[in-house]
Amino acid sequence: MELGIREEMQRMKKDSARMMAASEKMRNQALADIKEGLIANQKAILEANEKDLQKAREDGLDAPLLKRLKFDEGKILSVIKGIEDLINLPDPLHQVLFKRELDEGLVLVRETCPIGVIGVIFESRPDALVQISTLCLKSGNCAILKGGREALYTNRALFDVIYQAGVKAGLPEHFLFLAEARSEITQLLSCHEWVDLLIPRGSNAFVQYIMDNTKIPVMGHADGICHIYADQDLDVDQAIQVIVDSKTQYPAVCNATETLLVHKNVAQKLLPPLMEALQSKNVEVRGTEEVRKIVDCKPATEEDFATEYLDYIISIALVESMDQAIDHINHYGSHHTDCILTTNDANGDYFMEYVDSAGVYRNCSTRFADGYRYGFGAEVGIGTGKLHARGPVGLDGLCTYKYKMYGKGHIVADYAEGRKEFHFQDIKE
Amino acid sequence: MELGIREEMQRMKKDSARMMAASEKMRNQALADIKEGLIANQKAILEANEKDLQKAREDGLDAPLLKRLKFDEGKILSVIKGIEDLINLPDPLHQVLFKRELDEGLVLVRETCPIGVIGVIFESRPDALVQISTLCLKSGNCAILKGGREALYTNRALFDVIYQAGVKAGLPEHFLFLAEARSEITQLLSCHEWVDLLIPRGSNAFVQYIMDNTKIPVMGHADGICHIYADQDLDVDQAIQVIVDSKTQYPAVCNATETLLVHKNVAQKLLPPLMEALQSKNVEVRGTEEVRKIVDCKPATEEDFATEYLDYIISIALVESMDQAIDHINHYGSHHTDCILTTNDANGDYFMEYVDSAGVYRNCSTRFADGYRYGFGAEVGIGTGKLHARGPVGLDGLCTYKYKMYGKGHIVADYAEGRKEFHFQDIKE
Repeated sequence: MELGIREEMQRMKKDSARMMAASEKMRNQALADIKEGLIANQKAILEANEKDLQKAREDGLDAPLLKRLKFDEGKILSVIKGIEDLINLPDPLHQVLFKRELDEGLVLVRETCPIGVIGVIFESRPDALVQISTLCLKSGNCAILKGGREALYTNRALFDVIYQAGVKAGLPEHFLFLAEARSEITQLLSCHEWVDLLIPRGSNAFVQYIMDNTKIPVMGHADGICHIYADQDLDVDQAIQVIVDSKTQYPAVCNATETLLVHKNVAQKLLPPLMEALQSKNVEVRGTEEVRKIVDCKPATEEDFATEYLDYIISIALVESMDQAIDHINHYGSHHTDCILTTNDANGDYFMEYVDSAGVYRNCSTRFADGYRYGFGAEVGIGTGKLHARGPVGLDGLCTYKYKMYGKGHIVADYAEGRKEFHFQDIKE
Repeated sequence: MELGIREEMQRMKKDSARMMAASEKMRNQALADIKEGLIANQKAILEANEKDLQKAREDGLDAPLLKRLKFDEGKILSVIKGIEDLINLPDPLHQVLFKRELDEGLVLVRETCPIGVIGVIFESRPDALVQISTLCLKSGNCAILKGGREALYTNRALFDVIYQAGVKAGLPEHFLFLAEARSEITQLLSCHEWVDLLIPRGSNAFVQYIMDNTKIPVMGHADGICHIYADQDLDVDQAIQVIVDSKTQYPAVCNATETLLVHKNVAQKLLPPLMEALQSKNVEVRGTEEVRKIVDCKPATEEDFATEYLDYIISIALVESMDQAIDHINHYGSHHTDCILTTNDANGDYFMEYVDSAGVYRNCSTRFADGYRYGFGAEVGIGTGKLHARGPVGLDGLCTYKYKMYGKGHIVADYAEGRKEFHFQDIKE
């Protein structure tokens, strides 16, 4: 048992070469078969979910968790819709990023290809299992999935449908694996020789734990402390509208705004009507001393500015200048998404250049930071690291590239010794 | 002292927002000033180098190390040529990767930007200091440099020229830092909060040490075990030419071939003349039992196939099929560069699809795997990881991207509640 996951990952790594080479037709056929399988096995899936729910109720799980765990007909329709969309997305593989003739008959092509083996660790929602495994399949990646223990029976039923459909379509035996025991996470984290990327989905503490305990690259974000900076040149009504949306449209997610920084010259004009708008949405305002001189609110401490509330709470501070706002954001922020509200183009451009975040916005809600709203068709996750995929990540975040070089017996000695010269001509496809 | 590097990195991180926003004009001006500074300070630089060489000779350093340490007029001319080339390269920043109108007046732009703070740790060659710091400067990145102790005075003289020119051109105070003590490497490795990427340059053991001892992403390769697979459909003369070049054109580097896999059906035809060609270049051949039945050579053990010789030694094995060759390469290789020699197009395509390496070649020397030969104009390094830059890395490997979104007060509630709809129209620049 202790060696199980490591052995499984070695087999998966070996099979990943076959998975990478699976044709678009085969991958889309597998997706179509998964869709059919979900429809054909709907009854068994719902029964498995009922078993998980029953156990969860006995264990006294709270209502939000039970809601996330529930996988009903509506959820099945929704994941089926997701699979249909995925089938229709263009193939993310074999896209030629550039093609260059280095010399006569020597051609270099940079082409997208799968990453290889992806590990996905997620908490209770069973729809995440379907979503992420079909995204990996579409992009030619093998995947090991570790779901929440509460969803054991549901995950097993969903996995069986997906795995059988994949193998039937011709994908290799070890293209997908479901880990069930919690102890297997520790084993998985040690598999950096065979697993190319980890995608954890869950609470901040959970993602941070994964990041701290593995040598495998991790794509994700431990937190999302998003800011809005209200510039001195400002349309007050528009500003209030964007701030309220950024804070309240869905506060429990990473792209909701947590901190508002207000230029001192606009504070008197903005804060009183803003306060009213926020209070009408039941938002608790925590302000610095300067803010509290203008509006009546709770005091904000240093810690507030380093906190992702994920709740109807906002911290507010005044700044002397845009530079001070930028320094604050680069220091306290999580490089996720930060916005300037301004009518001044030069200030807008300055802010967007100097703020070091995956998303820098002007005059729109931070809640737009999302793969679907960016038009990616599917979202793999959101990354706040600097390397590889950054911000909302679409299917291309599950791809890398390889260089293909086609020669006719070309050798380096000819160039090193001056008998031949490169001419570097880019070839347009 | 113990806190020195960590404090310096915090300051550098803060300044990196200014460095990122430095205009192309300012960055190229700094490069031009560095070039002038190197010319003006040539005498002092050569004297500093003489001091290092003197000390190295007293310490009994061996000849290859002394050669790498030497920084003479020829080296100065060569780094100056490199800087001139760099000035003429197009700006890697502010390149629009896509531009999309999400809805009327709501525009999303994905644009290249610097990574932020790069840590470069390199062994004795002082020209590496000039090369890597100018590459970081061109791409708007701050950099901390840690050179070899043997080059202390040379590195200091070169650093002074580069740092003064940068600050004079207007770059921020902490855009560049030179660490000198070996103990500072340990501190640097702990700076994952402020350093975005590490580029180690040196021996395999050195790079592996760095990779094993930091949470900062590392770009590089611990080894380069490159393969050639000789297919059964083969032009023997061309094959011998490519194999000899791949092994002997410069054996001490990562893109030299270490292992040859020969299809059993072509072994009788290929091996005897190949053996002769390799022996004429003083290459030691180590073969499996099957190989030794055909040609007279030393025996190869399992360990040989996992070894990067970096020397005039090649290991040879026979395979029953192309699939066996692919499995061998994916298992023993380092995902660097691997080549098929074949006259059969289908076999060529199959190999290039199934081999999971940064470079997959057909009928040309593995020694082509190099940024200059790929036409990148400058080489940052070579990466064998899957994420971010892979294979030979040009200036774009020092860049990431950010999303800029321009709105007119757009809020998510309008879309969530059905009052508005996205129309996703890509805008061609």
